[in-house]
Parts: sequence; structure tokens; C-alpha cells
Amino acid sequence: MKQNFKLIIEYDGTGFYGWQRQKKEQTIQGELEKVLSLILNQEIHIHGSGRTDAGVHALGQVAHFHADTQISQADLKKGVNSLIKHAIVIQECRSVPHEFHARYNAVSKEYLYHVLNRPNACAIKRDFLWHIRHPLDVVSMNICSHMLIGAHDFKSFENTGSLRSSSVREVFSAQWVAQTEGKIVFRISASGFLKNMVRNLVGTLINVGLGKISPEKFEQILLSCDRTLASATAPARGLFLNRVIY
Amino acid sequence: MKQNFKLIIEYDGTGFYGWQRQKKEQTIQGELEKVLSLILNQEIHIHGSGRTDAGVHALGQVAHFHADTQISQADLKKGVNSLIKHAIVIQECRSVPHEFHARYNAVSKEYLYHVLNRPNACAIKRDFLWHIRHPLDVVSMNICSHMLIGAHDFKSFENTGSLRSSSVREVFSAQWVAQTEGKIVFRISASGFLKNMVRNLVGTLINVGLGKISPEKFEQILLSCDRTLASATAPARGLFLNRVIY
Repeated sequence: MKQNFKLIIEYDGTGFYGWQRQKKEQTIQGELEKVLSLILNQEIHIHGSGRTDAGVHALGQVAHFHADTQISQADLKKGVNSLIKHAIVIQECRSVPHEFHARYNAVSKEYLYHVLNRPNACAIKRDFLWHIRHPLDVVSMNICSHMLIGAHDFKSFENTGSLRSSSVREVFSAQWVAQTEGKIVFRISASGFLKNMVRNLVGTLINVGLGKISPEKFEQILLSCDRTLASATAPARGLFLNRVIY
Repeated sequence: MKQNFKLIIEYDGTGFYGWQRQKKEQTIQGELEKVLSLILNQEIHIHGSGRTDAGVHALGQVAHFHADTQISQADLKKGVNSLIKHAIVIQECRSVPHEFHARYNAVSKEYLYHVLNRPNACAIKRDFLWHIRHPLDVVSMNICSHMLIGAHDFKSFENTGSLRSSSVREVFSAQWVAQTEGKIVFRISASGFLKNMVRNLVGTLINVGLGKISPEKFEQILLSCDRTLASATAPARGLFLNRVIY
């Protein structure tokens, strides 16, 4: 019986060379395909909603794959979770219509970026945040985040090396929320993201928060479509692909 | 100038063979002594408030050490944090009276134990919790936790191999608190703890939550002073030494 399975996947990206299958290095896609091929006794190729870079995490990455099998979605999920490395967990597995495509059908994606803003670094859970020692002006960061909403050419925040026809993306929401104990979380959802777009936005917004870039200057950077004006890419470890909407 | 320094230390115990210095294996005390000896150019021996086992974490372990140095507490903290592995962070460093002793002067200690109670495991931050798949009855767990409060002989929850004159300890508070997304946190403070006491209590209280041990049976286990009646030791990775009170 030919089936199309949709997976919702959580992973700790720390020890991986990102999502995409590679010949020698350990990747999320590679590990999943290895275990799925073993369980289903056929060569499985999975299609993710998009790639994540080395060290980037996911709470809700989505992928699909076709297989000729009688296995139930529940047994498949149980099987993968019992065989795969603990850094990868299938949160949901569903048999979906054959047309479903994890990348082409995605309507929007949401990323989170976690920052710890206090004088002292932390030891616990340090692989899941970026530590910023000096106090951040979250109000200014949110004034700039608000400028991102809508359809814009985000070329200033795109790293080279991506395949895409246009650098225009529509941002639906973008906001920093201060939580307890110095934790600040950036939540951004958009129709799609350019290569390193969230990490480049975060790197630049942190400089806004540090007073190094004014909101006026930030607007100029956005409008300039010049990557050299924006700040350095924020570290991978603070970034989470939170969910993909279909 | 002879000084006595009090350190408050956070650490991710994942990669370490516990607190106590060992000849070959990497430990928290060993790493701290290595870096302190290097910075202060003399052999430093630190005294912790107590040991933590391999894989156990600390948010507020306390230690002290004597040194003949002019260095300021701020510079010492900065120096250690810049040289030591990222899994260890000095949160506070203070020059204190010569009599202060991290172990003998401790009045009480507080531990936290983190449980994730939901059908699915997690990938992110999995080194900092114990995943329990089946639903826990937190009310029963708290009925039993309440029985712990006061002075009791906790021999039923003590692993062999510890040096101590008595197994009576006074518990000041003990409670499970349900948080968001299936997270449940046990917080216990006491005059002191026996070897593996918190992890043995947690292992047994989880079986109460699973309905395998009734509150009546739990009381019998506590009163029996018989380790064989209590449950298996809970995993180290969920345990945090939260603070030490002087």
C-alpha cells in the first residue's frame, strides 16, 4: 500500500551538520532516512519544509516521504523514536493525502530565537541561547521588528549561496518578548525565509538593543538591500524552527 | 594577603564524573582547582558544600578556598569564567571572613528535580529532565511529599557507601509543582541530604504518581528504614542543586 507520511520532528541541532543529507557528516535528514529505510525495508527519501543550518534546533520541523508499506502511523512513530538518536524525536506521524508536500505546501513558518540578557553567562542549557552581557533596549528592538512586518525585499539580511528567484518575503509577525531571569525571545513568522535571514535579523536587532544602531539606521539597512550594512550573523544555537503552517 | 573566597557555581553536570576531584576523570572540583591554581599561581584546594554525582547539575553550588593573593573578587570571577570550560560558570565570587566553610556552615540545601510528563519524549534540553510517559497523579505525589516534612530517619532512601553518623535529616519543604507543557518540578529543602536521597525519593514518588505505590505504602516505606522497599534511583540528569543557605 503506497502511503505518504507527514512527520513533525523535534531536534537538538547541537551535534549535527544541519538538516540536509551529507555524504560523510551526521545530519538530521540523514539519520531519519537511515532509520526509516531500516524499519520500512526500502530506500526512503524525505523532504523537509526547508533546511536548517548546523547547530540550529527545531521544535516543529515538518517532512514528508512516500513508502510502500502496511505499517500504521502509530507504529512507525514508535519504531523511529526507539531506534533513532535521542537528539531527534518524532512528535507526530500521520498518513496524509498523496499530494501533500512539506516544502511546496507550506504557507508560513515560525522561528524563535532565545537570548539570555544578564551580566553572567549560564552553564545549564547554554546550547540553546545566545548570551548578551550588556542590557538590551527591548523597546527599540521592537520598534525595528515592527518595521519588518509586511512584504519587503530582505536582501540586506540574506547570506549568499541560496537558490531563490526573489528576495522578497512577507513577514506576518515579529516581536521580542521579555521573560523571567533575563530571557528574551524573538518570535518571527513569515511566508518564507532567506538563507540565514533570522540570524542576520537577530544579529542586527541585538545591535539596536545595545544602542549601536538607531531605529532610523535600521530602517536604512532594511531599505538598502545591502548585506554589508547589516550586522554579523547571530549564533546558530539560539535559533529554533518552531512550526510550519499548511 | 590571605583571603577566603566564597564561590557560587552553576554547572551542567552532563559531561562530568560528578563534583569530587578524581585522578583521571574530569570533575567540577578538578576543573575549578586547575583553573584557580593557574590564575593564582599556587596550589588551590576548594571545599564544596557537598558532592554531586555524575550527571547531576547545579544552579547554586557553593565552595570556598583560601589563597594568598591581592586579586579582587571581580577579577578572579572574570578570570575563571574566561578560562574554564563553558559547562561551568562562576555566578558569584566574594572575599569572605576566614572562618567561612562551605560545608560546615551550610544551614540548609535546596534541590530541584525536573520531570517531563507527557506521551512524547523531547529532544531539546533532554539532558535536564526525566521523561515519564504515563500520566502522573501529582496530588498523591504531594500527599506523600508532605509526609517527608520534619525530622525523619531517611534510611529507606539512602544508598550505601556514604560516611555519616546518623541517617536522620530534617526536611523543611517538599513539593511537586506542575508547570506548562507537561513539566513537573519537585522542590525539596532540608538540613542535609543522604547519598542519593533526592533521586531515591523521586524514584519512589514517581511510582506513587503512576499508582504503583499507595500513599499508605509510601508511609510504610519511609518508616521501615529499609532501602530495599523503596524504588530505583531516578536518573541524575533531572537533578539540580539549586542553592545552599548559610
